[in-house]
Amino acid sequence: MSVESTLFLPELREMLAENDEAELREFCEALPPARTADFMSGLSPDECWRVLQYAKPETRVQIFTYLEHPMQVEIISTQDRDEVASLIAELASDDRVDVLNDVPEEIVREILTRVPAVERRDILRLQAYPEGTAGSIMTTDVAKLAEHLTVREALDELSRQAGDLETIYYLYIVDEGDHLRGLVSARQLVTNINKSGKRLRDLMETELIACHVHDDQEEVAQKVAKYDLLAIPVLDDERRMLGIITHDDVIDVFHEEAAEDVQRLGGIDPLEMSYLHTPILTLSWKRGMWLIILFFAALLTAFALDRYEGRLATFPWLIIFIPLVISSGGNSGNQSATLIITGLTSGEIKLTDWLRVVGRELAIGLILGGFLALCGMVSAMLLTKEAQTIKTALILPLTLLLVVIAGALAGALLPLFFKRMGLDPAMMSNPFVAGIVDILGIVIYMNVALMLLN
Amino acid sequence: MSVESTLFLPELREMLAENDEAELREFCEALPPARTADFMSGLSPDECWRVLQYAKPETRVQIFTYLEHPMQVEIISTQDRDEVASLIAELASDDRVDVLNDVPEEIVREILTRVPAVERRDILRLQAYPEGTAGSIMTTDVAKLAEHLTVREALDELSRQAGDLETIYYLYIVDEGDHLRGLVSARQLVTNINKSGKRLRDLMETELIACHVHDDQEEVAQKVAKYDLLAIPVLDDERRMLGIITHDDVIDVFHEEAAEDVQRLGGIDPLEMSYLHTPILTLSWKRGMWLIILFFAALLTAFALDRYEGRLATFPWLIIFIPLVISSGGNSGNQSATLIITGLTSGEIKLTDWLRVVGRELAIGLILGGFLALCGMVSAMLLTKEAQTIKTALILPLTLLLVVIAGALAGALLPLFFKRMGLDPAMMSNPFVAGIVDILGIVIYMNVALMLLN
Repeated sequence: MSVESTLFLPELREMLAENDEAELREFCEALPPARTADFMSGLSPDECWRVLQYAKPETRVQIFTYLEHPMQVEIISTQDRDEVASLIAELASDDRVDVLNDVPEEIVREILTRVPAVERRDILRLQAYPEGTAGSIMTTDVAKLAEHLTVREALDELSRQAGDLETIYYLYIVDEGDHLRGLVSARQLVTNINKSGKRLRDLMETELIACHVHDDQEEVAQKVAKYDLLAIPVLDDERRMLGIITHDDVIDVFHEEAAEDVQRLGGIDPLEMSYLHTPILTLSWKRGMWLIILFFAALLTAFALDRYEGRLATFPWLIIFIPLVISSGGNSGNQSATLIITGLTSGEIKLTDWLRVVGRELAIGLILGGFLALCGMVSAMLLTKEAQTIKTALILPLTLLLVVIAGALAGALLPLFFKRMGLDPAMMSNPFVAGIVDILGIVIYMNVALMLLN
Repeated sequence: MSVESTLFLPELREMLAENDEAELREFCEALPPARTADFMSGLSPDECWRVLQYAKPETRVQIFTYLEHPMQVEIISTQDRDEVASLIAELASDDRVDVLNDVPEEIVREILTRVPAVERRDILRLQAYPEGTAGSIMTTDVAKLAEHLTVREALDELSRQAGDLETIYYLYIVDEGDHLRGLVSARQLVTNINKSGKRLRDLMETELIACHVHDDQEEVAQKVAKYDLLAIPVLDDERRMLGIITHDDVIDVFHEEAAEDVQRLGGIDPLEMSYLHTPILTLSWKRGMWLIILFFAALLTAFALDRYEGRLATFPWLIIFIPLVISSGGNSGNQSATLIITGLTSGEIKLTDWLRVVGRELAIGLILGGFLALCGMVSAMLLTKEAQTIKTALILPLTLLLVVIAGALAGALLPLFFKRMGLDPAMMSNPFVAGIVDILGIVIYMNVALMLLN
């Protein structure tokens, strides 16, 4: 896709240079809007906006919806306020809030004064929901119908509204006070198409999966995924229906949450924007706070080594393996922490499995530690002439065996412990586990050496 | 949800103990199948199967679909072969292959002989597509219609088939040879419900987003997400329509791929099953291969330190900060590698951004390195009496500054380099970056010390 879209760019620019109205109109209308947006992805925001002027209003809105997010933000921020405002008024209610959230505030204010009152109120209301809640990602473009309608009437009503709705596949049945009463799927309508006098009341499902407007977006997304829903209704405290969250928004939430988990595991406070759009000072702060915590954790290794300084001066060849010992433990700890944290987050591992987890890590630690010990023994014998007696030759392998086991156990137990304490196990990031295993590694190394050398 | 479901378990067990047919029937039919499955999640596979016997056949299939995967596998593997086979015949075509893939082979063979020939052939055909391809996750339960049908005829046809279809929201138009010609959405049918003499041919979209049966499942999932599709058709080389992949399968793919990325970043070859279900030897191998590669990378630090052994013996207080220096560089490298790798994978960072990335990492490295240098200076002065002259007091801070910058740059450049070489940047796992930064750290530390001490 990206290859063809780049190939087409020069022609598109030529059409713009020549103001070739016929060709540009043809370009905007010939393909599905998603493909058209693809072909435009190499243009500047100015060029992009100029091309969009040749699309019919409905097509323009649709193409705009499929442009990449930064491009949308640029266009809204830089182009003629009046024209932008009329585009904003036509966008899906969740999409426009998404875009406006990244446009500078003073520009948003200028645009909002130009948007019709109904849409303006809708935007301000949605913007008021805190980031990360169901309210912040829902759309208000939803089919709400009364229960006394017949199948036939419902289909007619739908066919009138279809253009403005995010999904027509779930119809929500509400009473006069907008309280959610039930759900009829388009599938049920179609199945009952020959009983067109039947009323929605007789078809509707009343045991509904719904969410509250203040629910965490990740929980909502998991619900939608678990029950294979196309959309989930969003309710307030009085079960009034405020909007819906659709399956495509759920995918966005999962992407966002997966990125956050990865960043936490890498020892970074999750970013709110993409890497290239996050200001350098924000990025420094989000990395720096963890780097400093980890620095002080690592400082403990200096205290530990300080205790053994005299001994190390007598056997200087022990020093050169310090980084090897530490990193082997850290890597082993990283691996088990990664597996246990992701297992806990996905629900595959439960707290009650802790004994099984420890058993498995002990077994794996023995196997991997044993193998690294073998590698370590050969390396030590080749690298230092001091490691030629049996006792000295055993220091490194024995240390590696114990350190790898300690790493595997610590990497598994620390996240389990965090979870048990009611904290997010992903806070126990890999660097943090590695920091703790580093200290263990030094203590093990020095004590094994003391034991074998005395 | 999980709280209420646990609360209900004793009552459910009591009903089973008393063989209370009326209550058990009521339990199976009263709630939506997804909720019923929830309430059953604490039961043993035997109990679960006994409860399912009280459900109507259609409800039984639906409840079973919402049971957790390990429970499904257990039930299929252990219960009466004939009864299990008739359940399998009724399941959605992608779901049953999913379950059978984790059932021991000899049991699958026994079950398949009891499944009707049509379903058996379908299962064998789907099982033949390699893991990770579009074919392996598609379903064959799809609405295929001829283009000459009218809207009215199409609706009637749909209402007949609806029970067996995974989605009725996209209708695929095929010719006699099953070649995909176009798509009509249920939305279009509903909008044209009053022009019921109109033919599908006049409504259908012919510029379609589709995928090939051998396409990588991740690419397919990204396509579905990008274009906000409910389903994507799966074609063979001749554009014959083999099946569809629906939005809920796409969410599963994203979960799977996100887990794989995290595992790669943690230095583990991705698991095919959940942690607790992966055999210990497989797990050891998937971790061990990386642990050993990393071991030999870390061994290079021993060579590096070996070169400076004499010098270190003269200034033994330098030794105690080795782990601190190494881990500071490693953590800084981890952070930038995590951000750059995930940015490259999501497409937010492109190869052409490399200069911007380097500029940002240099700036961030300076800020973070500067701050750690400050912490390092204070720590060194408090911890060792040797770091009291200006020159010796500067060794640790200067080293930390340079090491943090080197880490940030290496963490950014290594994944970019991998990507440039056409390799998967996630292969440049965090431990691997840390390993390389370890060596840089030692070389920097020793050279700074030599420079300031001479």
